[in-house]
Amino acid sequence: MSLLTVGTVAFDAIETPFGKTDKIVGGAATYISLAASYFNKPINMVSVVGDDFPDDALENLRKHGANTDGIQIRQGEKTFFWSGKYHNDMNTRDTLATELNVLADFEPVVLDEYQNCEFLMLGNLTPAVQMSVINQLKNRPKLVVLDTMNFWMDIALEELKAVLKKIDVLTINDEEARQLSGEFSLVKAAQVILNMGPQYLVIKKGEHGALLFNKESVFFAPALPLEEVFDPTGAGDSFAGGFIGYLASTRDISFDNMKRAIIFGSAMASFCVEKFGTERLIGLTQDEIDDRVQDFIDLVQFDISLVND
Amino acid sequence: MSLLTVGTVAFDAIETPFGKTDKIVGGAATYISLAASYFNKPINMVSVVGDDFPDDALENLRKHGANTDGIQIRQGEKTFFWSGKYHNDMNTRDTLATELNVLADFEPVVLDEYQNCEFLMLGNLTPAVQMSVINQLKNRPKLVVLDTMNFWMDIALEELKAVLKKIDVLTINDEEARQLSGEFSLVKAAQVILNMGPQYLVIKKGEHGALLFNKESVFFAPALPLEEVFDPTGAGDSFAGGFIGYLASTRDISFDNMKRAIIFGSAMASFCVEKFGTERLIGLTQDEIDDRVQDFIDLVQFDISLVND
Repeated sequence: MSLLTVGTVAFDAIETPFGKTDKIVGGAATYISLAASYFNKPINMVSVVGDDFPDDALENLRKHGANTDGIQIRQGEKTFFWSGKYHNDMNTRDTLATELNVLADFEPVVLDEYQNCEFLMLGNLTPAVQMSVINQLKNRPKLVVLDTMNFWMDIALEELKAVLKKIDVLTINDEEARQLSGEFSLVKAAQVILNMGPQYLVIKKGEHGALLFNKESVFFAPALPLEEVFDPTGAGDSFAGGFIGYLASTRDISFDNMKRAIIFGSAMASFCVEKFGTERLIGLTQDEIDDRVQDFIDLVQFDISLVND
Repeated sequence: MSLLTVGTVAFDAIETPFGKTDKIVGGAATYISLAASYFNKPINMVSVVGDDFPDDALENLRKHGANTDGIQIRQGEKTFFWSGKYHNDMNTRDTLATELNVLADFEPVVLDEYQNCEFLMLGNLTPAVQMSVINQLKNRPKLVVLDTMNFWMDIALEELKAVLKKIDVLTINDEEARQLSGEFSLVKAAQVILNMGPQYLVIKKGEHGALLFNKESVFFAPALPLEEVFDPTGAGDSFAGGFIGYLASTRDISFDNMKRAIIFGSAMASFCVEKFGTERLIGLTQDEIDDRVQDFIDLVQFDISLVND
């Protein structure tokens, strides 16, 4: 089904305990689109790059089923660049450089050919850009998923709250859920956030898995215990891409199907962290994905028959 | 089936963000026995207290199915006392006081009536005491589970390693698994530790759940997301009690049954943290336990049919 994503297409330079990269292709929309491509095509992309962005990187996205017509290429300007260094625990990182470049005055444009959007994934960006994309769509999508981060809670909270009223699913991490709600308990935090607009909340806990809440129910999916987490960059976006890609492919937005989507999203995130950047998300096979999802099933399944049931 | 536990029976004074207690009854063997009592009776206890320990606390253990004949009562001496204060995140705490008292020269005695032991739970204590109990048993139990902590890794590592060669299941937390193995990745840590003696390793991650490893498989059980964690004291021991109590009641030590035991243990831990000390573990009903286990089933169950299977 028609899937639209807005988010960064960028250069990253990453340092982890396992090594470091020069400038490699990254960005939320890149990870989202690659992960979603294994479930649903095309992925209509809205983003912006400079004229330094390599054609073959765009071609690679197209090979995976992305429509890159909505990626603006700004002549004489440079692509967004982020550089970071992960600590030994891989859960914390220092940002070494953030060069906004083309992002500084990014005005997203939803092409006419994107207007049939049924599933909208708003990757982490300024809330004003996210709102602009929602407002440009003539028909309300079947499902709108939004990812954001603590930075926007710090500097653009009111704009963020306005966007939250327009969406269906919010994905944030545990610390962000605490910051947004003012509650330490994630159960209480979810109750507060679900009163801000979204019907569903996904709390991403990195190596500790993910929680899905609506007002009645909660579902927990673990992260796969891995021998090595090589590079966590893009894990959350890969999760989001697998999540909305699966939902778009099934067109079923029930809570039960969202549980499945969380597992497929978790599987894509588990691939992402196995190599630097997007490397592991390129050219996955259906067998690899099925085997990985089976690993999740094996990890959590148990069989208890309660006598009194 | 015949279940024997050795561990502390003690006084605790606890401070959490929700309040503080005077001296209340605690200790690893207390929590283990209360939690196990909902699955298997009797629980034969080996421990030591001073003459300041109240008769009604021992009577309460007996009411829950404990055999307290093996608890030495030292006249003119005082019971082990621990005092601690939890930080706001409830995952970290400061020890305010540790008075060993009767524990300082504790020599455990396994009564003749305890010799039929099939399931042995060695609660957290000096490895020498744990080894003494193993050596006093004329027949090797069907299953030996051992809990320990970083303190013994710091000051008695060789004694601890000697005991590890004698047991079947080790339960420790994630930081202790990293310390014992020298590996940061829990998957690698498990591989190292499973070569030290135990066939099974349970890594307790507190609010992030628990992992069960053997050399071939891994199972993950979440912790239940709770609105409030009131007092984490005894959660690990309640987990261990539910775990071995369920195994003893079923006499099935297969990996599949250990998965069930992990869920029952997690359920007992989730009760424990809801009130101060042992309060919530007193007088639970079967319906309460079944409902709680059902919460775990609802939390993690999902239904994915892989096309290629």
